[in-house]
Amino acid sequence: MVLVNGKPEDRIAVSDRGLQYGDGLFETIAFRHGIPEFIEAHLKRLLDGCGRLNIPFRQLELLRKELIEVYQNLSDSDAVIKIMITRGSGGRGYLAENTVEPTRIISTHPLPNYPESHSLTGVSVRFCQHKLSENTSLAGIKHLNRLDNVLARNEWDNAEIAEGLMFDQSNNLVEGTMSNVFIVKSKSNQLLTPLLNKSGVAGIMRAQIMHLASQLGLLIKETVITRNDLRKADEVFVCNSINGIWPVIDVVDIEKKYTLGSITQQLQQALSMVKR
Amino acid sequence: MVLVNGKPEDRIAVSDRGLQYGDGLFETIAFRHGIPEFIEAHLKRLLDGCGRLNIPFRQLELLRKELIEVYQNLSDSDAVIKIMITRGSGGRGYLAENTVEPTRIISTHPLPNYPESHSLTGVSVRFCQHKLSENTSLAGIKHLNRLDNVLARNEWDNAEIAEGLMFDQSNNLVEGTMSNVFIVKSKSNQLLTPLLNKSGVAGIMRAQIMHLASQLGLLIKETVITRNDLRKADEVFVCNSINGIWPVIDVVDIEKKYTLGSITQQLQQALSMVKR
Repeated sequence: MVLVNGKPEDRIAVSDRGLQYGDGLFETIAFRHGIPEFIEAHLKRLLDGCGRLNIPFRQLELLRKELIEVYQNLSDSDAVIKIMITRGSGGRGYLAENTVEPTRIISTHPLPNYPESHSLTGVSVRFCQHKLSENTSLAGIKHLNRLDNVLARNEWDNAEIAEGLMFDQSNNLVEGTMSNVFIVKSKSNQLLTPLLNKSGVAGIMRAQIMHLASQLGLLIKETVITRNDLRKADEVFVCNSINGIWPVIDVVDIEKKYTLGSITQQLQQALSMVKR
Repeated sequence: MVLVNGKPEDRIAVSDRGLQYGDGLFETIAFRHGIPEFIEAHLKRLLDGCGRLNIPFRQLELLRKELIEVYQNLSDSDAVIKIMITRGSGGRGYLAENTVEPTRIISTHPLPNYPESHSLTGVSVRFCQHKLSENTSLAGIKHLNRLDNVLARNEWDNAEIAEGLMFDQSNNLVEGTMSNVFIVKSKSNQLLTPLLNKSGVAGIMRAQIMHLASQLGLLIKETVITRNDLRKADEVFVCNSINGIWPVIDVVDIEKKYTLGSITQQLQQALSMVKR
């Protein structure tokens, strides 16, 4: 099912700035047992992103109504719901006219069919050669300029490798192609995740995990994480809104194995208890 | 007029990766007196870009036929022709399926109606606050991830300011929002333009001007250009495929005036003689 500005429609104008320039934002929401998980956090990030890109999106209540229509029309109780907001259609080149109205797109997709073992016993990951773009003004935003993720994700097509880790122009760890990443230093009870001040997407699941970790008494640090920090970590995991937490047990490029650690498992347990 | 994969159609699938991720490329071509200017250079850059983004575009001959159909259907002998190639529709998330076929989009637009004085007596420009993203792997490519240009161009809406100059994360000059930029050092007979190894688009007109400048005996350097270099320049101009060369006579932010210099005029003259 696809709604464009509230109407069942699976096409948009070629002139839409989402296509012309990637001038927009998106959210990917897990819908499970009839519940759109962390929907308020997703909508808040969407509005924050519109603010940062100066997209005058004022149709939140309309979007909420359309989302409810979408939930009610889903044939399955589990799905992925993707929301896109673009700046709309029109304008002479890069300059948007004042009258341009943002476009709302809601689409539904099946939940991806990953093996349960990804969560239970962990995944193998690789290093991506393609590096992330750096821009302090765009860092953290889930915008539609996603060539970096596309190029990195298309470096491999082997289901044995569940995710690729991405680095910035200085070779510091930033995120996975579709996830955020955390490392654990057990002795000092620390949970570290890359500081997203130059690149990366500040995930909803990432924020949720940082919140849970602080409740569990872990010391949380957003910081620069080098390849060496990654190698020396006691536990590593990746996370996103759709898949939750996947423990990393193998980084194939450096032949580094990790055990499925207790802190990762505590966080998985805590996450399973959270009211969505 | 808009053709999508050869068919008159002004909409595309929401699932097209051009919209979903900005996963594609574009060219903007001046069509004047019935001639698509520098069309071979544009098509070559498009193919090079497909190569760099690993988009398996193999429909060049079909695209050529569609372009001829578009030329023949234009009601005016002057227009802008925009070509977009996206990776196509589909794939699970960032990973494109092997079977995805690239999408070809050709659209026509009126030539922008800038005053003739922009070329003849020069333009005022400003500095953009929004900085360009840096990524060595994407630098130079005319891809669809253009949020930087959008955010920079939307900083002002005053027709007196013809262009905004953009800087990289280290505050070095890169380009205009819709143009490349050159500076002239008269004493040493040098024409300098920013090295596009971290960001920016390598323009067709930029290449053309570098070629003409070498024929005119100028020393051409692609190099780092600081704000101070810009301030000390004897002449400055911006250029693109649609507008040719616009001399810069005023940078409003630093209250710096330039004269309309002889080297800029020689290049304009040489450009006017080139067979398109």
